[in-house]
Amino acid sequence: MHTPNPHYRDTIAASFREAQFLVDLGIRLVDCGPGWCETVLELAPRHCQHHGFVHAGVQATIADHTAGAAAMSVTPEGSTVLTSEFKIHLLRPGKGERLTARAQVLKPGRMFHVVECEVFALTGDERSLVSKLSATMAVVERSA
Amino acid sequence: MHTPNPHYRDTIAASFREAQFLVDLGIRLVDCGPGWCETVLELAPRHCQHHGFVHAGVQATIADHTAGAAAMSVTPEGSTVLTSEFKIHLLRPGKGERLTARAQVLKPGRMFHVVECEVFALTGDERSLVSKLSATMAVVERSA
Amino acid sequence: MHTPNPHYRDTIAASFREAQFLVDLGIRLVDCGPGWCETVLELAPRHCQHHGFVHAGVQATIADHTAGAAAMSVTPEGSTVLTSEFKIHLLRPGKGERLTARAQVLKPGRMFHVVECEVFALTGDERSLVSKLSATMAVVERSA
Amino acid sequence: MHTPNPHYRDTIAASFREAQFLVDLGIRLVDCGPGWCETVLELAPRHCQHHGFVHAGVQATIADHTAGAAAMSVTPEGSTVLTSEFKIHLLRPGKGERLTARAQVLKPGRMFHVVECEVFALTGDERSLVSKLSATMAVVERSA
Repeated sequence: MHTPNPHYRDTIAASFREAQFLVDLGIRLVDCGPGWCETVLELAPRHCQHHGFVHAGVQATIADHTAGAAAMSVTPEGSTVLTSEFKIHLLRPGKGERLTARAQVLKPGRMFHVVECEVFALTGDERSLVSKLSATMAVVERSA
Repeated sequence: MHTPNPHYRDTIAASFREAQFLVDLGIRLVDCGPGWCETVLELAPRHCQHHGFVHAGVQATIADHTAGAAAMSVTPEGSTVLTSEFKIHLLRPGKGERLTARAQVLKPGRMFHVVECEVFALTGDERSLVSKLSATMAVVERSA
Repeated sequence: MHTPNPHYRDTIAASFREAQFLVDLGIRLVDCGPGWCETVLELAPRHCQHHGFVHAGVQATIADHTAGAAAMSVTPEGSTVLTSEFKIHLLRPGKGERLTARAQVLKPGRMFHVVECEVFALTGDERSLVSKLSATMAVVERSA
Repeated sequence: MHTPNPHYRDTIAASFREAQFLVDLGIRLVDCGPGWCETVLELAPRHCQHHGFVHAGVQATIADHTAGAAAMSVTPEGSTVLTSEFKIHLLRPGKGERLTARAQVLKPGRMFHVVECEVFALTGDERSLVSKLSATMAVVERSA
């Protein structure tokens, strides 16, 4: 996939450093490329809901931000992206040592990008798909 | 709307007390009734993304949990609910002193409930709709 | 809600006349105003699936087109709208003499509108909500 | 993927034969297996909207029914599936000689299956992804 922003890696890295909610939760950038992004979160009790599973809000947060970062990689330097809408399927109860998320742009566009993101729960060597998101990311001018 | 659980208020209150992610974020129960629930979150910098707006993940978290609580109010005592999927539209950049969320069950069911939730940003007396969620909440046995 | 197109009624009426799939199915415009639209479909066996209920595709078609028409009412004359994405909840099995759909723009925008649509099944005087859609309608230039 | 219904091919084939809306539109089963299904539709002017593109409702219909058929392949013989909800992204204007759809069960379940479906437009040897659906298919008893 083509990127119109030669400095997209810096832009994406900054979005993780400067988004206080991401820093507060502990979600970190693993790697990214044109049209994709990978992130990780070491799980702790504070990420859980009342039955001891990872809260749907945590899964939505890592999936949404990873998808937004993938979208930024195909966005011109003078613009940024804002989530317009997303849908997430919670496929299995989220349990494990950490979550990883992998986002892929399905269709880049001038006004908005359509992006998908899969979230996996990992315990030791075992990995299971716990949720999947699809999102519309609007392209907006940076001053907006 | 009919409730099959005479103690639904206790069940819902407990879900806010025992969900560590909700406590950590500061999301609190305001009130609930058969088929609906209201919550509030005092906003702080740590709830924001890199442009200074409330992170989509925070909006998704309050909307999802408030919708789940509304769903619990129409669920038998021996069962609980798990989010199966939700979609959220982010309508305006989230800014303000606090968020409030109001969820309403659109269609209760035996296997799952369909629930909607509106999230408002408040600054002084001004209130604006910032996001809207629709969710499928699966009814599962408590031991599950 | 404000309309930037003084001839929006003609634009919407034409979209029903010229959309062959709508004509073929029998979906007709009932009325419209700034930000809303109402339609009707007299049900026949050919609208059904293999269990005798109205096919989800028929419900999606009337809900999507009615939502698109509501979106057109808040779109400038030189532009038109294309469905970017929608989600539909099928709440009850669709049965009855006819369907009516009522769409309302939730949030108009420069690049896209967010629209909701409720679909009702009617038998005599009885009316029940059978499905609800939420959609993103992209604003595109007419030549596009 | 495991199938609990040894006669799933007959069940799926019957759903295409007996669903009058599918027959009326011309949507045909190509092939299916445990957890997947493929279909085709030869495009005609009556499938189009007012700008000459395939109507979103046609794309939703083929995607929904193909996803439902994939879901049936992992459903016990005494039960059937009903669409609970779906979301569809319309990625590119639909144009061409025919549509093909390929559905894949992402997560089978006891109460419902999560299924995805991709729709392609074909002109001669060229194929492009025009839409993508994700759905929740509820498992219900056949007598329901």
